Amino acid sequence: MNILILGADGYIGWPLSLYLANHGHSVTCVDNYSRRSISAKHDAEPLFENPLLTERITHFVRQNPNYKLRPLIGDLCDPSFIEVVFAGSSYDTVIHLAEQPSAPYSMMGFKESDYTLRNNLLSTHNILWAILENCPDAHLIKLGTMGEYGTPNINIEEGWLTINHEGRSDQFLYPRAAGSIYHTTKVLDTDLIYFFVRNYGLKVTDLMQGPVYGLHYSQSSEDPLALPNFHYDGLFGTVINRFIVQAVSGIPLTIYGKGGQTRGYLHLNDSLQCIHLALQNPPAPGQLKIYNQFVDTLTVNQIAELVVSAAADANINATCQTVPNPRREKEEHYYHAKNEGFYKLGLKPQHFDTENILKIINEVLRYKDMIDTSKVLPKVKW
Amino acid sequence: MNILILGADGYIGWPLSLYLANHGHSVTCVDNYSRRSISAKHDAEPLFENPLLTERITHFVRQNPNYKLRPLIGDLCDPSFIEVVFAGSSYDTVIHLAEQPSAPYSMMGFKESDYTLRNNLLSTHNILWAILENCPDAHLIKLGTMGEYGTPNINIEEGWLTINHEGRSDQFLYPRAAGSIYHTTKVLDTDLIYFFVRNYGLKVTDLMQGPVYGLHYSQSSEDPLALPNFHYDGLFGTVINRFIVQAVSGIPLTIYGKGGQTRGYLHLNDSLQCIHLALQNPPAPGQLKIYNQFVDTLTVNQIAELVVSAAADANINATCQTVPNPRREKEEHYYHAKNEGFYKLGLKPQHFDTENILKIINEVLRYKDMIDTSKVLPKVKW
Repeated sequence: MNILILGADGYIGWPLSLYLANHGHSVTCVDNYSRRSISAKHDAEPLFENPLLTERITHFVRQNPNYKLRPLIGDLCDPSFIEVVFAGSSYDTVIHLAEQPSAPYSMMGFKESDYTLRNNLLSTHNILWAILENCPDAHLIKLGTMGEYGTPNINIEEGWLTINHEGRSDQFLYPRAAGSIYHTTKVLDTDLIYFFVRNYGLKVTDLMQGPVYGLHYSQSSEDPLALPNFHYDGLFGTVINRFIVQAVSGIPLTIYGKGGQTRGYLHLNDSLQCIHLALQNPPAPGQLKIYNQFVDTLTVNQIAELVVSAAADANINATCQTVPNPRREKEEHYYHAKNEGFYKLGLKPQHFDTENILKIINEVLRYKDMIDTSKVLPKVKW
Repeated sequence: MNILILGADGYIGWPLSLYLANHGHSVTCVDNYSRRSISAKHDAEPLFENPLLTERITHFVRQNPNYKLRPLIGDLCDPSFIEVVFAGSSYDTVIHLAEQPSAPYSMMGFKESDYTLRNNLLSTHNILWAILENCPDAHLIKLGTMGEYGTPNINIEEGWLTINHEGRSDQFLYPRAAGSIYHTTKVLDTDLIYFFVRNYGLKVTDLMQGPVYGLHYSQSSEDPLALPNFHYDGLFGTVINRFIVQAVSGIPLTIYGKGGQTRGYLHLNDSLQCIHLALQNPPAPGQLKIYNQFVDTLTVNQIAELVVSAAADANINATCQTVPNPRREKEEHYYHAKNEGFYKLGLKPQHFDTENILKIINEVLRYKDMIDTSKVLPKVKW
């Protein structure tokens, strides 16, 4: 299959590129290094260095001459680069991960909010048009976020909701209300994509993914160049990475507020598996498939407990500390999200357990001297 | 009251500027003449010439020295112009009508779709930030469209819907699914605005307005310079204007498809009245008020019938003709939208009747020789 991955230098994009090349697909890997630029500017570098996408691809193609990987560096907001990406290629599947992914960054101020809105929405619009004009039968797989739904007081269905109202019934996109500009741009993406599906008959899968954790995946073996980036900073780091780095550094795990914030999480391996399953099950023309892509529903307190427990297995005595919440979010709330879709397609998940977390802790321990603990503090409040 | 009107050169914006000046308010009138540029480029000029906003304001301030009207010409997508607009002024109310308003234009191709998305969404984002940073207590009145809802199979509530699902309940934005890129940008606007209201406590009223008809309003008297633009072309013309021009020109009224397309319409006078009512009833901080702004629910066939009947009163023998629908839309569908909100605030509407239509017909008859009947044909298909 001829596959285009947009955002191929990212935490999901890079492992996915290797994973799909290993499955025999021809993969064009696009990135503009936006996350690298933002990280460098805001002192939010990942724990260990990741070679450039071009360098990583050269390395792995040399080691595996059967890998069909092609890097293209450029900005998808630029229509002339879009032309280069689609020139002479008929893609079967386009996997769109090319979004500014930091909620705190998007909430820093006008410029960052504007950048996030432009980068995420205009690139999605450009990509929809490029598919329409170059390969209208291609399957677009778009990475959304579980954060699009927010934390409603009713059960979260997978993308759609049948509403019965005053004696009549219809099916709608499940209502969305996100908690940051970043998450809101993904709501806008979904609205825009849904219009293109309805009006032009495109085939799209929109993945409502929860926060992903893990460094090792099926293709990573022992080669450190296979590892994705590991961010533990206040911009790009997830709560799980922050807790692990705090445990390894011997400082208390910082729980924001009451710690009842509940989300659905999944391991990197399962993210790759889900995207692969989506790829193997394309929608019909004019169909928008939506999956909730997560495995374990956890509160921040539960994550902290398990990280403390896994740290103990590494002979680390970790402690927890409550700090004021830098975000405007509910700290105790109802949360019940459904995720049957990928299980029906055959997902065999791994769970958030001490074994999985210990594996990350052991990797982070190798870079313990490089940890800058000042980075873990939240620098953006909203 | 110190009022900022964005899009003050438009069909609603210009009458609203005079109307609010006449009510004693100080009004800053902003426009970038985008509709004029698009009209000129695509041979979609209005029936009679409308002087520039600056010229019209000079004229009316000369005639009514107590009018406080100030024009500012520039592009709200440009942050440096936003600074000029907000410099040294603390607005009590910001009325945002500054959007590319043509659905057919937005569906012409990539460039027009991209322009509509950028112009409408990025300007809304700029305005939200400008209010946040300059006058966070100001009341933002934003012109949305009834088209945001599309044509669902359940009753259309006013902006919000309480959903009962699996034994629990919550209130959400009423689900939206629009029929063009233009209408979709207004859905995105609503999503974006709702986030700013939730997160930053802004006060916003979002008006879901139906198509507006009429040339005369309370301030128009006999001065032709008070009249708003009258578009009858395939880009900016409404179905009512097209039918009136066809009747006056002695060519058949063109009904797209089955003519069962149902929407809520209102007279220009009532649009002004509604916006004035919204202005007098600001939301609390952190509250998003949404009104459905229309008076009469009509099918295209009903509109055609009434125009034929009003034309007969002007001794014109008008006929109808069915033509293939250039748009992807349902031609027969359920449509029941609620509009109690403005009635509760005191709206005294006028209805879509032969008297009102005859008044427009008589005005159009004055310019009969200037009608270019080739303009009424739809030039864009989707």
